[in-house]
Amino acid sequence: MQLEALAFDVFGTVVDWRGSIVREGKALTKRTGVEVDWKQFADAWRAEYRPAIDRVRHHEIPWTKLDELHRQILDQLIERFDVNGLNGQQISTFNRAWHRLTPWPDAVAGLKRLRSRYIVTTLSNGNTSLLIDMAKYAQLPWDCIFSTELCHHYKPDPEAYLMAAELLDLAPHQIMMVAAHHEDLNAAQALGFKTAFVARPLERGPNPADITIPDLPFNIVAKDFGDLADKLGA
Amino acid sequence: MQLEALAFDVFGTVVDWRGSIVREGKALTKRTGVEVDWKQFADAWRAEYRPAIDRVRHHEIPWTKLDELHRQILDQLIERFDVNGLNGQQISTFNRAWHRLTPWPDAVAGLKRLRSRYIVTTLSNGNTSLLIDMAKYAQLPWDCIFSTELCHHYKPDPEAYLMAAELLDLAPHQIMMVAAHHEDLNAAQALGFKTAFVARPLERGPNPADITIPDLPFNIVAKDFGDLADKLGA
Repeated sequence: MQLEALAFDVFGTVVDWRGSIVREGKALTKRTGVEVDWKQFADAWRAEYRPAIDRVRHHEIPWTKLDELHRQILDQLIERFDVNGLNGQQISTFNRAWHRLTPWPDAVAGLKRLRSRYIVTTLSNGNTSLLIDMAKYAQLPWDCIFSTELCHHYKPDPEAYLMAAELLDLAPHQIMMVAAHHEDLNAAQALGFKTAFVARPLERGPNPADITIPDLPFNIVAKDFGDLADKLGA
Repeated sequence: MQLEALAFDVFGTVVDWRGSIVREGKALTKRTGVEVDWKQFADAWRAEYRPAIDRVRHHEIPWTKLDELHRQILDQLIERFDVNGLNGQQISTFNRAWHRLTPWPDAVAGLKRLRSRYIVTTLSNGNTSLLIDMAKYAQLPWDCIFSTELCHHYKPDPEAYLMAAELLDLAPHQIMMVAAHHEDLNAAQALGFKTAFVARPLERGPNPADITIPDLPFNIVAKDFGDLADKLGA
């Protein structure tokens, strides 16, 4: 039973969330005059992501779409960063910056190669409508869009990975989880999925140090999606 | 709040199931020598579809993927049509003929036009893996693939349509259900969805009579997907 499908983490693995949020923030400054350190703001927004999904994972709050979690965090950050002068429409549009994230330069071409040989799907904590909008915005050539919204279990809950196998009608070992984050891959690997680590050294901003990809216990360690396609013969 | 997304019924509306099953049957005859009236066989296979999904809808049997329902019907038809000499692999491959259905001639071009302006998704009783395989086989340019498998409620149960609205994060009136079948459209319309009827007079085989599309109480009545794109300004 050979590899049939690749399931991709999205934020950080396929798209550059930090650069995109900073770009959207700067555009907002240009339109409205609000002055914010958008790099710090983007980092703060993302820093609150994991605590927020963990509140859902640990049943402290009921299932909540990522759009809504992003909005709750945004409302807090507007206070913390003392951002004044945005109206409701502007805040709502800025919250949807997460629907307009830009792919890493190798992502679209790599996905096209991989799609010619495998089923390529998202497996993301982004809600379905966010992932659809992002795919249209960034022309990401997915065969299908799986959001953990479909099972109301955020990654790394095992239910999220097992849902993908059930919907694809494949065994876990016929599916490769692709991510730039160890925890995501560890969770998939524990369930029998194949795993590919793709290095995204710029995910958290410019990194002037030499990037050495360590030896990792995954089936594939790749430097980008082109390298992943090479290694999978696509 | 304007129209944002189109949700498509698939079997009969996007793809020609009858012509495709007959073609697959004839190919099976060529490979194995089994002699069957494939037109009658295709009609019988489809005729048992509705009773099968109704057993799920009425909770007589638990949720069952359409692939499995198709297989149960196929096993019965192999007896009824006295088909002899197929091995397990051949029967299994033939069951997946439903993953390899051919689109109506206007479907792919029409979908491409509609996709440039709207979100285009399936909303089909086909299981997710069936719809993914079909999209790859037929190059159907979906933005996403919604199967009623996602909510374990076959159309025309209201849960199926409401799930699409929830996942798209849209109100029903921002979504248009597109189908060649009144019942599907009536169910969507009752929930506040917009509706488009597309005539598929050849769905059940050659029809020598003049086809007159009656005046129907749907938002759009179109003769094919090109006509639908014209009428939606796409």
